[in-house]
Amino acid sequence: MVPPLGLRVPPVDLGDGTALLTDQYELTMLQAALRSGTAGRRAVFEVFARNLPAGRRYGVVAGTGRLLDAIEAFRFGSAELDFLTSTGIVDEPTARWLEKYRFTGDVWGYAEGDCYFPDSPILTVEGTFGEAVLLETLALSILNHDCAIASAASRMVQAAQDRPIIEMGSRRTHERAAVAAARAAYIAGFTTTSNLEAGRLYGVPTAGTSAHSFTLLHDGERHAFQAQLSSLGEGTTLLVDTYDVERAVTTAVELAGPSLGAVRIDSGDLGLMARRVRDQLDSLGAHGTRIVVTGDLDEYGIAALTAAPVDGYGVGTSLVTGSGAPTASLVYKLVARADGPDRDAPMRPVAKRSTGKPSRGGRKTAVRRIDGHGVAYAETISTGEPAAGRRDRPLHVPLVQDGDIVGREPLHAVRERHTRSVAELPATAVQLSKGDPAIPTEFTDGGPRS
Amino acid sequence: MVPPLGLRVPPVDLGDGTALLTDQYELTMLQAALRSGTAGRRAVFEVFARNLPAGRRYGVVAGTGRLLDAIEAFRFGSAELDFLTSTGIVDEPTARWLEKYRFTGDVWGYAEGDCYFPDSPILTVEGTFGEAVLLETLALSILNHDCAIASAASRMVQAAQDRPIIEMGSRRTHERAAVAAARAAYIAGFTTTSNLEAGRLYGVPTAGTSAHSFTLLHDGERHAFQAQLSSLGEGTTLLVDTYDVERAVTTAVELAGPSLGAVRIDSGDLGLMARRVRDQLDSLGAHGTRIVVTGDLDEYGIAALTAAPVDGYGVGTSLVTGSGAPTASLVYKLVARADGPDRDAPMRPVAKRSTGKPSRGGRKTAVRRIDGHGVAYAETISTGEPAAGRRDRPLHVPLVQDGDIVGREPLHAVRERHTRSVAELPATAVQLSKGDPAIPTEFTDGGPRS
Repeated sequence: MVPPLGLRVPPVDLGDGTALLTDQYELTMLQAALRSGTAGRRAVFEVFARNLPAGRRYGVVAGTGRLLDAIEAFRFGSAELDFLTSTGIVDEPTARWLEKYRFTGDVWGYAEGDCYFPDSPILTVEGTFGEAVLLETLALSILNHDCAIASAASRMVQAAQDRPIIEMGSRRTHERAAVAAARAAYIAGFTTTSNLEAGRLYGVPTAGTSAHSFTLLHDGERHAFQAQLSSLGEGTTLLVDTYDVERAVTTAVELAGPSLGAVRIDSGDLGLMARRVRDQLDSLGAHGTRIVVTGDLDEYGIAALTAAPVDGYGVGTSLVTGSGAPTASLVYKLVARADGPDRDAPMRPVAKRSTGKPSRGGRKTAVRRIDGHGVAYAETISTGEPAAGRRDRPLHVPLVQDGDIVGREPLHAVRERHTRSVAELPATAVQLSKGDPAIPTEFTDGGPRS
Repeated sequence: MVPPLGLRVPPVDLGDGTALLTDQYELTMLQAALRSGTAGRRAVFEVFARNLPAGRRYGVVAGTGRLLDAIEAFRFGSAELDFLTSTGIVDEPTARWLEKYRFTGDVWGYAEGDCYFPDSPILTVEGTFGEAVLLETLALSILNHDCAIASAASRMVQAAQDRPIIEMGSRRTHERAAVAAARAAYIAGFTTTSNLEAGRLYGVPTAGTSAHSFTLLHDGERHAFQAQLSSLGEGTTLLVDTYDVERAVTTAVELAGPSLGAVRIDSGDLGLMARRVRDQLDSLGAHGTRIVVTGDLDEYGIAALTAAPVDGYGVGTSLVTGSGAPTASLVYKLVARADGPDRDAPMRPVAKRSTGKPSRGGRKTAVRRIDGHGVAYAETISTGEPAAGRRDRPLHVPLVQDGDIVGREPLHAVRERHTRSVAELPATAVQLSKGDPAIPTEFTDGGPRS
């Protein structure tokens, strides 16, 4: 049935047209491999980061759910094929291969929300070379962005302790990246987002009330506050720093009464202002009115306000830019491939041997090693049999099997996993100071561990 | 006519579903203003950056073309309205207003590709408060991202002098941001991109040949090179640093002959390697074979290779992350609004008065002041009549008039404008060292200038 014209489905972030979100060389490699007869060789690619951003204690896996949607939508339709053939990027035999393309292999990975460390094999893609190489750019784009945001967000959540954080960085990043950033921040423990599309598409709780422009629109702050209270109720958050904070707080409580939900301070010395406003609110009997602070906060700014009477934070720029590390530096490397075209041809570990960027060949598994107190003490990566001891936690879960997506999860489950994963790390993990990864990465060639 | 199901139009980056790429508070402000009777007041919002990223000499306007597409697609259909009403974010009267929403105002702005400086009013949105406030988040998302990328890209292009640069950062940023980044880099003078969707959607020339995985897939480098040459011809670029560079270059020329297009080096000391490879190629008679270098390059890395025999650069991470400045810090501020609801009610300049983030009220125009040698010497911003002298260049062009998009331009025109705009700046503009903006920003209240 043809849907009515007014109805636009599916939502774009569920993967409409993902096949060209790809570097050209994936397709030229495919074409050359089709010609040389090697495109059908079984291949194993792994996604990992050689290092965490300088001084960070852990990384956070995020983007997996988005990647699964994007893999499902990775098809070459007439728009894609017309472009590729009319520009001469691929020849006709390759176009015919692409027309039938659907990923039929397997994907394993760290569960979304889990923590990762240097060299953690957070995604393993197995299939023919041709089908697996095509996913390189898309997988890296999604994971590099979302892991970077979630990793920064998690530190902010730790710094905020139990105080809620609103994600409000949409305006400081690409309009679609903003939606993914809101999702990643929620996974890492942010409470809400300002981004409406993240609410619609992923069910992230949304928040927001007013900006300075609303106050400036009206004939005086009193009129603006009246208008907002009349529309949103006395539980709303009034922005009190357009003109004079003290006068604004007086007006706010006068109009809303002591059950005013919250006031927001967006400028000045936030700690000092919060203390003054808390005293003023208390003196006016508005003991339950919360104080929300916003304005160029990052994890350090949040931590500096620990002793201030702040009830919630809003974080924008530093969240969507990964607080100094806007990309997770994940790479997608061929680590093993078959010697010949048969499905059961023996697999050979492979690795680049030139200077500068060494990699380890061979398909890997990983466990997080856990001591008798339930605390993680090592990330053990093995090229042989998984080396899981009794208490150790195997880290790979199935995501795609024979081309079928099997790893979808509700976002709240991912968010809860992240909380557990951080809680399992040694206490040093949540220090904001620069340091080594919270646990060391060890390599073994397998064998049992107790 | 209902399009056939296989045909997916419009492409998502042309703006499908942009209305929810918006902060919730734009809608709660709208609702409160509808109730208080202020939503229909005429309003002027301006987009500007209080500062350039530390030490930068100029910024580059980019994203305008994408913004115009996004404004045109900014409509509330049933999916958007269902979400907004079922979650209680807006009430029924507001939903009915949104259902009919279409921006009917005017937008002026700096032409895309032009340079900007602190406080340059790069976009001016005039309409009712209700219709103009809704565009805040989307306008900032697009401009903050694209200006950040183009501003970094322009420095790299200057550093590369006349050598071509390939944009290849898609894997290190959000999958849709990658498409916009490729477009912004092209505006700033990059030659090609690896991103196929940027090719399809915007006509940016694309490039790409092979990765290390292609070499590792084959039974030896020789077989891999043969496969690539057989598919892409001897004009292709062979990647020579998978195992041993010297041996790879020997093999490459042996197989392709002296008309081999190029070799690519992706690791090691790029300057040293380039010199060695150049000598080797020349000794093999491959005088025309070019050398392309890639691997964590930024504007400084490019400049450091000026004296090396390099024929082209590939830049990834540093481009898509804005080389240290991943967002342009542009803000969208109400600077004037009517005193009452009538279309001809007098306009009043407005500005926030609290500490920390001062703004200047009033609708502004701007000219670039040009001396007798054709060199820019000031950015003059005026709240009165435009203060253009004989040689000065007015900076605002019409983009939207009465809701109709009038500012669309072909991308090559934007790219050419950028070249002219940089050439007009004093020579200090293209220094990579940290310094003040290339020209000062001056404010006047108007009046004629000679």
